[in-house]
Amino acid sequence: MKELIEKTIATEQVFNGRMIDLQIDTVSLPNGATATREIIRHPGAVAILAITADKKMIFVEQYRKPIDRVIFEIPAGKIDAGEIEHLLTAQRELEEETAYRAANWQLLTALYTAPGFADEIIHIYEARGLARQEAPLAMDVDEFLNVHTLTLTEAKALIGEGKIVDAKTVYAIQHFELNYNNY
Amino acid sequence: MKELIEKTIATEQVFNGRMIDLQIDTVSLPNGATATREIIRHPGAVAILAITADKKMIFVEQYRKPIDRVIFEIPAGKIDAGEIEHLLTAQRELEEETAYRAANWQLLTALYTAPGFADEIIHIYEARGLARQEAPLAMDVDEFLNVHTLTLTEAKALIGEGKIVDAKTVYAIQHFELNYNNY
Repeated sequence: MKELIEKTIATEQVFNGRMIDLQIDTVSLPNGATATREIIRHPGAVAILAITADKKMIFVEQYRKPIDRVIFEIPAGKIDAGEIEHLLTAQRELEEETAYRAANWQLLTALYTAPGFADEIIHIYEARGLARQEAPLAMDVDEFLNVHTLTLTEAKALIGEGKIVDAKTVYAIQHFELNYNNY
Repeated sequence: MKELIEKTIATEQVFNGRMIDLQIDTVSLPNGATATREIIRHPGAVAILAITADKKMIFVEQYRKPIDRVIFEIPAGKIDAGEIEHLLTAQRELEEETAYRAANWQLLTALYTAPGFADEIIHIYEARGLARQEAPLAMDVDEFLNVHTLTLTEAKALIGEGKIVDAKTVYAIQHFELNYNNY
């Protein structure tokens, strides 16, 4: 087996933002040569596969500036400063974005979204036993979205139509399909 | 349905790198307020679900500096400047990273990896009819990896062990499982 690990020689902080930071690391490669790595630091995120009693998934429809498109995604959001427990972040995001609380929570997985250039990890939960809140937590002031409840067939159709196009949401739909008979 | 789209008021280029660029957009929100969006521009990428004649998947084991870990992923790489046809990029990456060429190619999907802060889209292909090359294309000079061929069961075990942790690879394994009887 080849040696694979790169050792950090220097780190240059390029940008410290509201959501992401950017640094350039100079590394020593396994063969002794040097190279640079452009790295985005992200606080991490949560996403929720929320399943209703009648076996539908909850989606949020929102505009994403980086891709200049309105897309359907599972509810998700970044981990705020001071939020240590990812489950609490997931519960906050689900209620803020959809007005639902869930009685039953289970961590499904944690996935790196783009390990070639970013350290973002997204903790994906399954939420069941949903109850809509009359007075839910308020959304972030710069967040606008519509909530949709869809069957597996409807969700897969939206993949085909190109309205569901992000990795975490397709993961959740595949997970739902693979475990469909258990719900 | 609520209005969702944000209009760009100003764009500030913060960084132009070898792999990614960073810009900050000031946007007008649907309610007329303004906000800023930190956006990573990426040239896009390809990834390959390569399936052998004996129904195994091909993985590459490599170090990822942003997460400081050695992980198993499906073969993948960014689209180089001037590469117009994504299929050719996928064919190049598969041969460079694994020494395999494939007779049969099919585009499975294209997924945004992190639409909250990046425009990266990854075009995921299925490759079958594999033939190992005696004199394959050379890898990038700063790339070091080991190639592994695993059954579905073995791949799922690596998810459980935390050695497969990235969204595109878990997508590919789920796709393989959902369509297993067709291979």
